[in-house]
Amino acid sequence: MKLLRHGPAGAEKPALLDADGKIRDLSGIIPDLAGDVLSDAGLDRLRALDVRSLPVITPERIGACVAGTSKFICVGLNYADHAKETGKAPPEEPILFMKATTAIIGPNDPVEIPRGSKKADWEVELGVVIGTRAKYVSEADALSHVAGYCVINDVSERAFQSERGGQWTKGKSHDTFGPTGPWLVTRDAVADPQKLALWLDVDGQRRQTGNTDTMIFGVAFLVSYISQFMTLMPGDIIATGTPPGVGMGIKPEPVFLREGQVMTLGIEGLGEQRQTTIAARD
Amino acid sequence: MKLLRHGPAGAEKPALLDADGKIRDLSGIIPDLAGDVLSDAGLDRLRALDVRSLPVITPERIGACVAGTSKFICVGLNYADHAKETGKAPPEEPILFMKATTAIIGPNDPVEIPRGSKKADWEVELGVVIGTRAKYVSEADALSHVAGYCVINDVSERAFQSERGGQWTKGKSHDTFGPTGPWLVTRDAVADPQKLALWLDVDGQRRQTGNTDTMIFGVAFLVSYISQFMTLMPGDIIATGTPPGVGMGIKPEPVFLREGQVMTLGIEGLGEQRQTTIAARD
Repeated sequence: MKLLRHGPAGAEKPALLDADGKIRDLSGIIPDLAGDVLSDAGLDRLRALDVRSLPVITPERIGACVAGTSKFICVGLNYADHAKETGKAPPEEPILFMKATTAIIGPNDPVEIPRGSKKADWEVELGVVIGTRAKYVSEADALSHVAGYCVINDVSERAFQSERGGQWTKGKSHDTFGPTGPWLVTRDAVADPQKLALWLDVDGQRRQTGNTDTMIFGVAFLVSYISQFMTLMPGDIIATGTPPGVGMGIKPEPVFLREGQVMTLGIEGLGEQRQTTIAARD
Repeated sequence: MKLLRHGPAGAEKPALLDADGKIRDLSGIIPDLAGDVLSDAGLDRLRALDVRSLPVITPERIGACVAGTSKFICVGLNYADHAKETGKAPPEEPILFMKATTAIIGPNDPVEIPRGSKKADWEVELGVVIGTRAKYVSEADALSHVAGYCVINDVSERAFQSERGGQWTKGKSHDTFGPTGPWLVTRDAVADPQKLALWLDVDGQRRQTGNTDTMIFGVAFLVSYISQFMTLMPGDIIATGTPPGVGMGIKPEPVFLREGQVMTLGIEGLGEQRQTTIAARD
């Protein structure tokens, strides 16, 4: 299934994308794509619906594809080629950091360039949405705790991240720095999360091209690993790292975002995003 | 006012501590200590109540003193003496990192020693609870966005924090690593947040002694500073750093927590906490 959320920011309703590409409202069936709805039993209940009986809608806006996110956990330098472009050795264990959950926006919402930003950058990433509580889970059991997958743009301000006194959170958490969606593609609909092509363009120029098959640490390992350090809850999001081609890695000079640009990005089978960059709002 | 939450974990109800030290239930008045209730208008509504009309209760358990926390933001090395004991130079700008919100527990709940932990450590900290949305706020306006203050134990696993591949989140986020409370002491009831004594004992032995007057960056500066990087929301918590005396700083050998110990800690006017350490649960 491909699930989504639509409507004004902060008042989204759940929906699904049917096999014909029509969006059908689920707000009469479930309150939101959050909590127990994301468990295997909750998703099975949606699978059992007669899709044709659900009202077809034409949303004005698509929101983030999951709600009730308590943690937005990111993995750093998780593609061998990306680690290389940053000039760093591949990590021996996953590097974890957090984005503020207030950074989450819809896939096509504008992305703010923070005040004083000179080094805003893009990162297309495979997002993993947790479906059931996971603490101390094994790698073998890990994927059973995953509701599904989505596209994430882990927008980053490199100076805030690395030149303002340690710890990456500072450069990862600005409002709008976490476009998430359009679809939450359920686990059963993704044959192999380690064989998905990813891409990102800025103003129509291809900047990132990759495939999740070059991840250093795969999804099952990451879910198990993270669950050793904190308890993953339904709706939590893991952004699993970015392939090569970020702005700070461009030679001979890094390239960063400015207001008025357009980022388009996507992952094979998970849909596409499109964001324009704007000045930060109060 | 001193506000609190009581009842089973995950089903807490709001209450207040009256001038006679009696706990009086607020669950007929407000749904929880969260969201709009934490604004100046929301708190004024509680101030206007006839306290004697509220039912006196004897809670079996005190929960964390705030709910609906989207972010648990911590400031590193924010006391000059603590920076010194860790062997690091005082930071030029605040060091920010995140604790998982799933680490939040009541002030007297047991604290888990994670599996494989050899370096679990304590950190008494002044907690700041946000009352209203704050983005790009000035230092002069910052405190108007603060609902109040509380005691926090920023429990930390030093090996996970610093020896497992970068970024402190990994050592700060284990379940139970964020005892918060007992009271949310509203802003008006704290004459000066930069003149509060703090202390922490382990098994009755004094380990930390400090005063918020030696913070490198004060509360108003921190709220303003953090609001440049992310939007603070009602219920968000800022742990403002710890004074000297953490286990990893003890000479000639660092001292860390093991199962079966007792931490007691407090801050002048904000109440006390007491946690026993136990083995991690699934």
